[in-house]
Amino acid sequence: MDFSSKYLEKAVEEIGGLPGIGKKTALRLALFLLRSETQVAAKLASSIVDLHDKVKRCKSCGNLSDFEQCHICTNPTRDKSIVCVVEDIRDVMAIENTGQYKGIYHVLGGLVSPMDGVGPSDLNIASLVEKAASEKINEVILALSANMEGETTSFYIFKKLKAFNLPLSAIARGIAVGDQLEYADELTLARSLKNRLPYETSIHQNRS
Amino acid sequence: MDFSSKYLEKAVEEIGGLPGIGKKTALRLALFLLRSETQVAAKLASSIVDLHDKVKRCKSCGNLSDFEQCHICTNPTRDKSIVCVVEDIRDVMAIENTGQYKGIYHVLGGLVSPMDGVGPSDLNIASLVEKAASEKINEVILALSANMEGETTSFYIFKKLKAFNLPLSAIARGIAVGDQLEYADELTLARSLKNRLPYETSIHQNRS
Repeated sequence: MDFSSKYLEKAVEEIGGLPGIGKKTALRLALFLLRSETQVAAKLASSIVDLHDKVKRCKSCGNLSDFEQCHICTNPTRDKSIVCVVEDIRDVMAIENTGQYKGIYHVLGGLVSPMDGVGPSDLNIASLVEKAASEKINEVILALSANMEGETTSFYIFKKLKAFNLPLSAIARGIAVGDQLEYADELTLARSLKNRLPYETSIHQNRS
Repeated sequence: MDFSSKYLEKAVEEIGGLPGIGKKTALRLALFLLRSETQVAAKLASSIVDLHDKVKRCKSCGNLSDFEQCHICTNPTRDKSIVCVVEDIRDVMAIENTGQYKGIYHVLGGLVSPMDGVGPSDLNIASLVEKAASEKINEVILALSANMEGETTSFYIFKKLKAFNLPLSAIARGIAVGDQLEYADELTLARSLKNRLPYETSIHQNRS
């Protein structure tokens, strides 16, 4: 593309550097910002700078927060003895949206992935082991993705925490609510058969 | 969504305010910026602010430029007597990419669209009439989109410029190069039949 303004070219380059945004979309967004009022661009720019200046990681769980500790860790009604291990803060949001979980979280900040060069030492695992060693925890729930990286990370954490003799569980894998059986893959179907529940438990859950 | 940081929430809101970017994409982009180095976010933010501070509209054609006049209007090799009227600076880029046009441009900054509340007075049309009145122009080419808004705008400009007795042309409508005839719509096909060219002209163009 042949730009008539080098500032426009720079903006398109920077916006196009974001994941999933191509050159054409970047140009469309830059022209939108140019057309809109100065305030719109200024507010967007300052909110992006604030992300780095103001947002911290909660020192106890790794969740994003504006303070030293996040609103979940400082909430007195949450059960601090149950820790749910998740990959990302988006998973915290997803679980919070269910309204079913009253414990606290531990955000790893990624999954072990040799393909992407991410090892256990790159993740927030050491502090989880410390937490487990402190004997304030009664249960650890592994809520990681059902893919290769998720399973590898779960197994690594399982090995690290085995010595503490804590109840360690993983979230259930199975047919998603609303899904048709015939479209489920063999692995999921096999797992959901193996981990079947007494029917009475199952209907009780559907009603709650 | 339930955000653990109000700065993150603000960034997601601002990014999600851009056209074609939903809340989920905005969150993904905000988290990407958070994870990347401070410099990435700072450069993006400053390039967005620069858009408003540094990019000007060329005072003679309305194209975007870093200076009072754009690089096309100040180029001594361009033919200033031929003016191509386009909607947007993206159209200037598209025509420049063909490498076939040696005249100058006139960017309207939009099309007449009563549905969106855009009238002729909202567009850069008055200065086009002034240009035509100055008698420095020998030809005006209308290169607007082949839709209702484009046709309306072309007709409005035609009526405004009629008094000056200038050669006024519109770019050809027809079957796109590479397209199959059977998939063309009736209007396009009818127009391309009506505006047929002598075969020798047509093969000469295909070869150039």
